[in-house]
Amino acid sequence: MILQLIVGNLTEMKNLKYIIIGAVAGGASTAARLRRLDEQAEIVIFEKGQYISYANCGLPYYIGDIIKDRNKLFVQTASSFALRFNADVRVSTEVTAINPTAKTVTATNLLTGEEYTESYDKLVLSPGASPVRPPLTGIQHEGIFTLRNVADTDFIKAYVAESNARKAVVIGAGFIGLEMAENFHELGLDVSVVEMSNQILAPVDQPIAALAQKHLREKGIQLYLNTAVTGFEKNDGQLKVQLKDRAALDADVVILSIGVKPDTRLAEDAGLQIGQAKGIWVNEYLQTSDPDIYAVGDAIEFPNPISNRPTITFLAGPANKQGRICANNLALGNRQEYKGSINTAIVKLFDLTVGTAGMPVKQLQRENIPYLTATIHGNSHAGYYPGAQLMSIQIAFSPDTGRLLSAQVIGAKGVDKRLDLLSSVIKNNGTIYELTELEHAYAPPFSSAKDPVNMAGFVAENILLERLKVVDYSQLSSMEDDTLLIDVRNPGEVAAGTIEGAVNIPLDEIRSRLQEIPRDKPLLIFCQQGMRGYLAQRILVQNGFSNVSNLSGGYLLWKACQDEEALLASYS
Amino acid sequence: MILQLIVGNLTEMKNLKYIIIGAVAGGASTAARLRRLDEQAEIVIFEKGQYISYANCGLPYYIGDIIKDRNKLFVQTASSFALRFNADVRVSTEVTAINPTAKTVTATNLLTGEEYTESYDKLVLSPGASPVRPPLTGIQHEGIFTLRNVADTDFIKAYVAESNARKAVVIGAGFIGLEMAENFHELGLDVSVVEMSNQILAPVDQPIAALAQKHLREKGIQLYLNTAVTGFEKNDGQLKVQLKDRAALDADVVILSIGVKPDTRLAEDAGLQIGQAKGIWVNEYLQTSDPDIYAVGDAIEFPNPISNRPTITFLAGPANKQGRICANNLALGNRQEYKGSINTAIVKLFDLTVGTAGMPVKQLQRENIPYLTATIHGNSHAGYYPGAQLMSIQIAFSPDTGRLLSAQVIGAKGVDKRLDLLSSVIKNNGTIYELTELEHAYAPPFSSAKDPVNMAGFVAENILLERLKVVDYSQLSSMEDDTLLIDVRNPGEVAAGTIEGAVNIPLDEIRSRLQEIPRDKPLLIFCQQGMRGYLAQRILVQNGFSNVSNLSGGYLLWKACQDEEALLASYS
Repeated sequence: MILQLIVGNLTEMKNLKYIIIGAVAGGASTAARLRRLDEQAEIVIFEKGQYISYANCGLPYYIGDIIKDRNKLFVQTASSFALRFNADVRVSTEVTAINPTAKTVTATNLLTGEEYTESYDKLVLSPGASPVRPPLTGIQHEGIFTLRNVADTDFIKAYVAESNARKAVVIGAGFIGLEMAENFHELGLDVSVVEMSNQILAPVDQPIAALAQKHLREKGIQLYLNTAVTGFEKNDGQLKVQLKDRAALDADVVILSIGVKPDTRLAEDAGLQIGQAKGIWVNEYLQTSDPDIYAVGDAIEFPNPISNRPTITFLAGPANKQGRICANNLALGNRQEYKGSINTAIVKLFDLTVGTAGMPVKQLQRENIPYLTATIHGNSHAGYYPGAQLMSIQIAFSPDTGRLLSAQVIGAKGVDKRLDLLSSVIKNNGTIYELTELEHAYAPPFSSAKDPVNMAGFVAENILLERLKVVDYSQLSSMEDDTLLIDVRNPGEVAAGTIEGAVNIPLDEIRSRLQEIPRDKPLLIFCQQGMRGYLAQRILVQNGFSNVSNLSGGYLLWKACQDEEALLASYS
Repeated sequence: MILQLIVGNLTEMKNLKYIIIGAVAGGASTAARLRRLDEQAEIVIFEKGQYISYANCGLPYYIGDIIKDRNKLFVQTASSFALRFNADVRVSTEVTAINPTAKTVTATNLLTGEEYTESYDKLVLSPGASPVRPPLTGIQHEGIFTLRNVADTDFIKAYVAESNARKAVVIGAGFIGLEMAENFHELGLDVSVVEMSNQILAPVDQPIAALAQKHLREKGIQLYLNTAVTGFEKNDGQLKVQLKDRAALDADVVILSIGVKPDTRLAEDAGLQIGQAKGIWVNEYLQTSDPDIYAVGDAIEFPNPISNRPTITFLAGPANKQGRICANNLALGNRQEYKGSINTAIVKLFDLTVGTAGMPVKQLQRENIPYLTATIHGNSHAGYYPGAQLMSIQIAFSPDTGRLLSAQVIGAKGVDKRLDLLSSVIKNNGTIYELTELEHAYAPPFSSAKDPVNMAGFVAENILLERLKVVDYSQLSSMEDDTLLIDVRNPGEVAAGTIEGAVNIPLDEIRSRLQEIPRDKPLLIFCQQGMRGYLAQRILVQNGFSNVSNLSGGYLLWKACQDEEALLASYS
């Protein structure tokens, strides 16, 4: 009797018909995994565009001729995917409506105009997100593009080549905007980036952004921060990007990269629940408010593991992993929980790499989540082995438990390695104490005996246990007026620049020059990177100086932040 | 009253006198941290050699002229360390005895011969380990070296230059031996490596070693595996390395790199407990059997986190971290536990990197720890972005819990990143399920939407949940005789070589050619890397084929193992 029930159930399972809407990251992953779990299922995939499962994240690099062979963009073609996974792949076909009661979808073949309905047992939505195209004057002019898919890419690449474009303006300094800026630069174009906020890369905090901005400027990218685009016009055939309170910029090609919004229309029309963040609501099994409909990718919202607030994650990695989880839950019953994304993201910016995981400080502030930060600079590998490059790591952590809340890394080499490690600790609700214990692989070409990630942990531990009192760049202006700045670097370093008003007492002279240091004033110590300042602070505190702080990130970070602040001020 | 006690206690703490014996990784770390925690303590450091805190792991690269400036080897000099950390640093001074009852050490100034005693409140032993120099005939001949410290390095470098050495023989194919082989090769020497065991790099398993051996041979290193050195002789001024059952090798310079043993003599003489692994026994606070004596570094043994058996770890990373923990416990009271090392180690071998963490399969077998393995090959970053390189990952995990027991990675790029991630999971007693969820940073230059570490987790999960049945290379010979081998690669790939007796049915033809496949025989599927074999297996199993296995690591790994096995066999 029980056996019969099971067999009956299996038989029923094997005949299920799945429809998947959208065949890029999430949809294609779901389909492939479904097939591996269920050889007998019927799987129908609808894709509005011409291509499936393509290398979305590679599109800017194809435009920049870094990826030279267009075929490389296609992980699978519709026909190879259909053959390998025995799936009915219908490209250039748009699903226009879902009828959850009848369990059907209405589809239109975009090539023939034919409209038809298709039934399903289980439906998976993977519609993705679309670039925002604001209603600015003149936005319809030729040469103004958004970049989402292969078709957009082909248009942009052809337009740049055929129009012999010389000047590119990228609007929006997010990850894709900056990748486009770099790739246009690689093509030899003169590139300007216009960003409404006061920094590039919204998901990182200002000190890290300052280091990145400096690098972009050095590479010849014109950055216009705190700058709003008011519209576009064409004069004598020349496209111009009009800016608020600034002169317009000439542009031969414009990329609008100001953000994306989830494609929730189909879901909304079908009466599926849309959540607080305006994404498709799903439960921990990635099931929508209709139990026969699941959803994955850029269109869903999910509680952020740090704030627990619904958040939309626009990243390919999570979408792919969701696809696998979704297929497991469809084929085997709801058994695997998705745990949310900490928004780990990375971008190559010319010779630098910038990465982030977890919740940046600015967002922790908005969410009223208490935090402390630690910033360190460290070598990508042993300093005595050729080619080591300095990187900077900022971490934020809970003042109560030491839980790691975010990490941001910038540098020329080995950034991805440190970010992945830090991301794994954040993901597992780990603490800064774990960072001190990580047993990384050390040989001179790869790291130092203490890795920068260990060092970040050590500094955070010192801060948490109040062995180290730090002041961030942003807190400098609110220091007490009589604070004495002490630069503990060597005179040679000081000669190349210091903070106005600082007195110089090199670290190794501090013990013998204690009598020069006032005991009644707050002291702010700084060195180049932070380490010597810490040592100086330990000496002073243990010699009875009661109010001693160390400048977090040292002169190096201060200078970058200061320079960027001065540039911003000079705009007005 | 309580306050008085605390103040009294603090006062007493501040006057402590610490002696530290050994000033390289562990000892120098301990001293620096001690000073940061206790500005008033008296810190005396004894170092037998001339240098302190030098870049031990960089020595082979200085010999190979990769590190060109000798000064770069010195992280600190004795005088700069003394100044910065207000420590009494006594180099060229050997401690010859410890009197734990009197709490004194006897020291000899090796330059003057002066002997004296010095008292301590707390003593830290960081004596390290010495290279084994076996009692072979002729080992006293000029030109035969071991490499431990700067003095050895200077000798070797000068000898090679002055003797105009052309042929180097490295005895022992461990990490340092192979680094020396590479560096001699960089200098233009003809290099042979002689290794007693049947593989290089004892801490990795044979399949991974096979891939590394292939690369070394391609680079022109002569590998003599399964080969014992029986002695040395000098004929007409030519040094010869005599081998068992093989012709002797001419050598102008010989490096003995067959292992190290902990320097426990001082500890033994002082009556400190020596453990099962013949290292200095310490408790979780790194305290020896005498509560006033702590020990760190290569001379201590500690329970291995996987087997729980006492193990000696000869690695700089753990030594440095132990130094910090030891200082914390000395200065603040025993409060921080050391958790043991999982022996994470990495080595650059010409264009490849090989790394390991946790307990290799061969050792799991010896320790009778149940395990399963998964082997995958994956790209260092997105295949469509230029420069991606294949890497191989082997993981071992518990068949009961999925706990990750070890990881080995080999490849040209990004090996350190994956190893560090895997190491962090092993260190935290994590499982292969965590690998599937790791949220790595993905952009085309850095990874793929599913990172190779994720893929290793997916494959392990499939094995653990019995969705995938794999056969290792080592199990091939014990397959049932009537097993049918099916090569599911494309005919073009098959033409370049396959396994004898295999029939070729390309993956995408399997569904239409099921009738060709016998239902009464065990089937062993293979493809190039393992993925297509898995897909074929899923199709077959769900079509009622009951005994289907997939060759772990695919033809790629099979070929490397097979070639190395044939070479080994050809020796005899």
